[in-house]
Amino acid sequence: MPTPFEVLWQEPQLRPLAPLVLAAWRDGHLTPAELLSIRETLERASWLSDSARQALRSWLDADAPPTPRALRTLEREVSTWLSAAPKGQRRPLSALAAALVSGNVADSQVQNALTLLASVGATFTEEELETPASAVCAAPRGAVDRLGDAERNQLRSWLDGSQAETRERVRALLSEPEFRTVQGLPTASYREQVLSWLRRVIERGAVAHCFPHGLSAGRDVGRFVATFETLAMFDLSLVVKFGVQAGLFAGAIEALGTPGHHGLLTAALEGKLIGCFAMTERGHGSNVRGLLTSARYEPDSESFVISTPGLAAGKEWIGNAAVHARTAVVFAQLETLGESYGVHAFVVPIRHEDGTPCAGVRSEDCGHKMGLNGVDNGRLWFDDVRVPRGALLDRFGQVLPDGQYQSKIPSSGKRFFTMLGTLVGGRIAVSGGAISASKVGLSIAIRYGLARTQFAGVDGHETPIFDYLTHQRRLLPPLAAAYAYTFAQAELVRRASELDAEGATRPDVETLAAGLKALSTWQAIATLQQCRESCGGQGYLTANRIDALRTDTDVFTTFEGDNTVLLSLVANNLLRAMRGLVRKRPIGTVLKSLVEDVVIALQERNPIAARADSRESLRAFELHETALRFREKALLVSLARRVSRRIDDGLSAQQAFEACQDHGVALARAHIESYVLRCFQEVARDQPLLEPLCALFGLSRIEADLAWFLENDFMAPPKSRAVRDQVNALVREIAPRALDLVDAFAIPASCLGPLADPEYLRGSGLVREET
Amino acid sequence: MPTPFEVLWQEPQLRPLAPLVLAAWRDGHLTPAELLSIRETLERASWLSDSARQALRSWLDADAPPTPRALRTLEREVSTWLSAAPKGQRRPLSALAAALVSGNVADSQVQNALTLLASVGATFTEEELETPASAVCAAPRGAVDRLGDAERNQLRSWLDGSQAETRERVRALLSEPEFRTVQGLPTASYREQVLSWLRRVIERGAVAHCFPHGLSAGRDVGRFVATFETLAMFDLSLVVKFGVQAGLFAGAIEALGTPGHHGLLTAALEGKLIGCFAMTERGHGSNVRGLLTSARYEPDSESFVISTPGLAAGKEWIGNAAVHARTAVVFAQLETLGESYGVHAFVVPIRHEDGTPCAGVRSEDCGHKMGLNGVDNGRLWFDDVRVPRGALLDRFGQVLPDGQYQSKIPSSGKRFFTMLGTLVGGRIAVSGGAISASKVGLSIAIRYGLARTQFAGVDGHETPIFDYLTHQRRLLPPLAAAYAYTFAQAELVRRASELDAEGATRPDVETLAAGLKALSTWQAIATLQQCRESCGGQGYLTANRIDALRTDTDVFTTFEGDNTVLLSLVANNLLRAMRGLVRKRPIGTVLKSLVEDVVIALQERNPIAARADSRESLRAFELHETALRFREKALLVSLARRVSRRIDDGLSAQQAFEACQDHGVALARAHIESYVLRCFQEVARDQPLLEPLCALFGLSRIEADLAWFLENDFMAPPKSRAVRDQVNALVREIAPRALDLVDAFAIPASCLGPLADPEYLRGSGLVREET
Repeated sequence: MPTPFEVLWQEPQLRPLAPLVLAAWRDGHLTPAELLSIRETLERASWLSDSARQALRSWLDADAPPTPRALRTLEREVSTWLSAAPKGQRRPLSALAAALVSGNVADSQVQNALTLLASVGATFTEEELETPASAVCAAPRGAVDRLGDAERNQLRSWLDGSQAETRERVRALLSEPEFRTVQGLPTASYREQVLSWLRRVIERGAVAHCFPHGLSAGRDVGRFVATFETLAMFDLSLVVKFGVQAGLFAGAIEALGTPGHHGLLTAALEGKLIGCFAMTERGHGSNVRGLLTSARYEPDSESFVISTPGLAAGKEWIGNAAVHARTAVVFAQLETLGESYGVHAFVVPIRHEDGTPCAGVRSEDCGHKMGLNGVDNGRLWFDDVRVPRGALLDRFGQVLPDGQYQSKIPSSGKRFFTMLGTLVGGRIAVSGGAISASKVGLSIAIRYGLARTQFAGVDGHETPIFDYLTHQRRLLPPLAAAYAYTFAQAELVRRASELDAEGATRPDVETLAAGLKALSTWQAIATLQQCRESCGGQGYLTANRIDALRTDTDVFTTFEGDNTVLLSLVANNLLRAMRGLVRKRPIGTVLKSLVEDVVIALQERNPIAARADSRESLRAFELHETALRFREKALLVSLARRVSRRIDDGLSAQQAFEACQDHGVALARAHIESYVLRCFQEVARDQPLLEPLCALFGLSRIEADLAWFLENDFMAPPKSRAVRDQVNALVREIAPRALDLVDAFAIPASCLGPLADPEYLRGSGLVREET
Repeated sequence: MPTPFEVLWQEPQLRPLAPLVLAAWRDGHLTPAELLSIRETLERASWLSDSARQALRSWLDADAPPTPRALRTLEREVSTWLSAAPKGQRRPLSALAAALVSGNVADSQVQNALTLLASVGATFTEEELETPASAVCAAPRGAVDRLGDAERNQLRSWLDGSQAETRERVRALLSEPEFRTVQGLPTASYREQVLSWLRRVIERGAVAHCFPHGLSAGRDVGRFVATFETLAMFDLSLVVKFGVQAGLFAGAIEALGTPGHHGLLTAALEGKLIGCFAMTERGHGSNVRGLLTSARYEPDSESFVISTPGLAAGKEWIGNAAVHARTAVVFAQLETLGESYGVHAFVVPIRHEDGTPCAGVRSEDCGHKMGLNGVDNGRLWFDDVRVPRGALLDRFGQVLPDGQYQSKIPSSGKRFFTMLGTLVGGRIAVSGGAISASKVGLSIAIRYGLARTQFAGVDGHETPIFDYLTHQRRLLPPLAAAYAYTFAQAELVRRASELDAEGATRPDVETLAAGLKALSTWQAIATLQQCRESCGGQGYLTANRIDALRTDTDVFTTFEGDNTVLLSLVANNLLRAMRGLVRKRPIGTVLKSLVEDVVIALQERNPIAARADSRESLRAFELHETALRFREKALLVSLARRVSRRIDDGLSAQQAFEACQDHGVALARAHIESYVLRCFQEVARDQPLLEPLCALFGLSRIEADLAWFLENDFMAPPKSRAVRDQVNALVREIAPRALDLVDAFAIPASCLGPLADPEYLRGSGLVREET
């Protein structure tokens, strides 16, 4: 008489259920609740014979689980039955079951079995059902799989992109002996150190390199951003000071001035005139349009009078303003002949050559900060400071000697946004800086994690901490993100370099720059936080670099626009773009076309696709792209509907938008992540070196928002569990390559600190001493 | 002839579908995809008459949505039909529909309609269907609803708990003129300042207060932790130094020493002997049992020789060791008569009174850190330093003059854990410090957010930034968490005070202390990060306090045990407890009883409960408690199964556990969050002052892990959307109380910095000047 276990493959009516039994005992595929409910269903199933029911009960008994041996035998049986079926194809259990049906089973019984199986979400390939669960963790631990030279060069060339030469120049510069990171200096000395680095950077031609056609002929945006990004690997105070001087101060003169200002521009770019960019006011950090400083034109003296009306109007947080700046570009409300024409920029001397203040200018040091203490941020007040008519940077609006105002742009609102638009480079630079800082942190933490050991493994050898799954989980998705943002940033820079006929930036660039700045800076601080914690106490010591990277970048989330405000702006722009379509077509049609767009993605929502959880389907770029696009479109449609409804209910457009602000922020995030993923996929497609990393980025973005995808039926629960498993599998697969992946960032040794230095580590006692 | 719109309530067969139409146009309840699929189903429905189909098409046309007026009319009609139904009861659409069926509709048509409706997840109350969607955002903005004195005192008394008097003493101390926070001091001066604060704290009796029965008679844990927690509102370097001196150094002597060490203990507690706690080594931060420093007993001289064998054995990160400590409690492997007996603690003088090093002791300054620079962390090396036999803290193991080792605890492993267990207070203190720092940050950020304005609202008045939903979303769930962790901490302290007959701590205390330390410190840095960003640039200035709070607490996540390692320990303990049960019963029975436990929670998983999304059901404490308990149990069962399977597949227990490490961490997190929630609910139940905050904590914990609850069918998608909406509603409801809720923390003004000071703000230009 067969044992209850053997009955399973001897009773024809049970054959189709064999895969269910295998699935039930496989690791993590079914929840205890699912198992329980299947058992209950089988207990009640009238179509089962008593011996069949008894056999199934034995196989599914939590009190007495089948032995590994019994399971192996069953796996082999199933494998034999399936030998004719095509391999490698992932199918739901019911499909596998159908393949197992032998001719002599009554149709209704088969149907009953298949119905039951259709209620089970998990899908399998035949191989999987045959592979022991432990195989997934059988990969050798601590393995480091180094690439060959050609592949390493290829990685680096992707990362460096079209600006490889510029980046190499700056790397060489940072490898000169002057560039050694410092710690714990008193603020005053640190500031002087940073200024002297800045002068050295200018001296060595790094700024001139960004102006291939001469200092007054317009910069090469690609070179400028690449210079900024590479400097950001070193000291972030230096890069911010570089940005203030060559980006904001000189940049404003270049973008808003006219040929009369070229002398000033040259002095700024040659470092002969240190300047600052006085836009932000104490009362209105994020609301530039509402700033209060005034510039009143006096025809008699042909001059402007710059005034700070009250405490809230004081210029705040101005880099270089506390000590080093001699001249400021001041943003103020232009008034002439009794009329106000909105915000304009003026060149205002604030200090004499010897550092004493100019008449009517008061300044104050902002004081000690969480980070960036090499930058002398200050406050400025103007007590009726008089500057000549030519101080107005008058590209977009001019004041004639008699006080008449003229501009080719009639609306002050449009003028304001045109002026601000020319300064979009600031946000792009901040993104680049954030991404670079992340790369430095990851390079340190991954190298340290590969060297540092802690507890002994089963073989008695101590395990490098990077071998732990939780450690890889902390560092590798951020590594994938660093790659993704690098490519997204390169694409944004490319678009920002393409000016339209009127010299204006492309309309999508402002939205992307705002959104990418928000996401890349949040990503950076999250990444650096993981790096900090991954290095334990060593990560907390300033000498080991992560402290400075983490605290210096922290302010990136709120300067050049608070991230939440920027994401609201992105959402607003996306809604406005939709309303732009509405002008041409009725709103319903637009909504419909968007919904249809979503429906394309919805084909992924059919029960089979929502449950397809094979390794291949989960790693497919198409899945990731469709998922993020579906989310973006769906959030846009639902936001538009919510906002419209609230407007119908009597709210103003602004109130309606604000009432859905969290939805708007989610939409903006979805929009930018979708863009970032596409940029990464563009580079990684069909490139085995990058594919797993790009899949990890895509899948970890889905994992981070699984609730949304489940809620919107884009995925069924078994698939979402499979997403988590697949992220683990990718992380394990990429781990042996981690060293090459950070090596490809080609960060100069001067920027990495001791923890990434094998020689230091060997003599430090921090890592296992070879015996 | 009726309009297509009127047909809806004139065609009897359409009546049951009226709620569907209302639901379709309600804000956020149905996705566009759901709407589309409902429309498609209706288009194909053969049971609809042509006019009925036409009417429904009109009502559900995205191209031409019904006017608000038409919807209002329908709402009124439905309301009339439902007037007999009981109010306030949330029901699925199909139930509402059933109530609308009038007698003359063919059964099959009704059945068809109900089947369709059953496929729609959302549920409604009658009132909801009648309330315009916009009502949810009609709450007055910027409203601050102050509590009366009695209610404020009640809040504070809950928070202060049984240690109100101790807390008041320390608050009074911190309000003395010496206690003014400092910024930007050079490291050396800052360290001296902190030491002088510490001496002042001792002088004013704060330590003696913790020993109500005399300095050698054992401390009152409750008083000690409350003192630590209140000091942590001020300067975290001070509290860490206080912890090193009175907690670790004196604490080790008290817990591990015998009466012969009482003189030393008294000197430590009176601040006459500054000490340090030399446990951690450079090579093994988290692995104390594997430390390498040795203490070899020599019977001839009746002394121990303390030695540092190699670089990795150097003591690292030792607070007070760089400058101030004169004596160290050194943890070393005890060897005597050629045998090793594991880790023991020794009292070793390291510096003479004048600060010069003792013979054979070398020390080094760890240098500048991300934070806590008022603590002089150092490294120590011992070159055969000789100490008398009495230097051994010999409560758990003694060495006789002739070198014989004796101990009441035979196994060195058990001895080690017993010794370590007596030091559990360190982790509890760290949790308390983290919670206090969060409270200070929240007090600053919420006060500033209520005062700071930025953009003009529709009425022309500028809106306080705290009025924005995204801002409340950032700060109020962390505020709820600060309350929750306060009560969880109080309960842990209560349990830690209850020693068993042998003077040992309760077995659950170690697990809870480890887990709560991990979660409370991660919560603290996340909270403080939100506070930092919510204050914009002002949050970045050191003078405004959040910098120090954020950077000082950062190391809390990795010291006193790395958080990830601690959570793995918690998971291991939970598995071990389960195996403890297994010894008495077969594993299957244990698993089964756990599964059944889960099944109780599963009653929540039935389709109705999984979709019940009324305000009341979502705020019910029972839902939150069941959800978190279900998650904990389900994760434990599935982890146990996964680990067993892997062991069956041939892995060692350690390998099997490590292969599922991320699962273990999730379990530990679930276990602790479940505990924290229960502690909060215990206090908040039936207390209208706390109920919404406790509901916000529970619901935001569910929201943070929605994917898991969806995956495990604990919730259906409409309910998970409703969770998000309800978190928004709670946040809006609590916002007007936010000021009182932070006031109740009763943080001394000296700890809050300028941003929380209305007088400073009024004169600062940072907030709207009254005109």
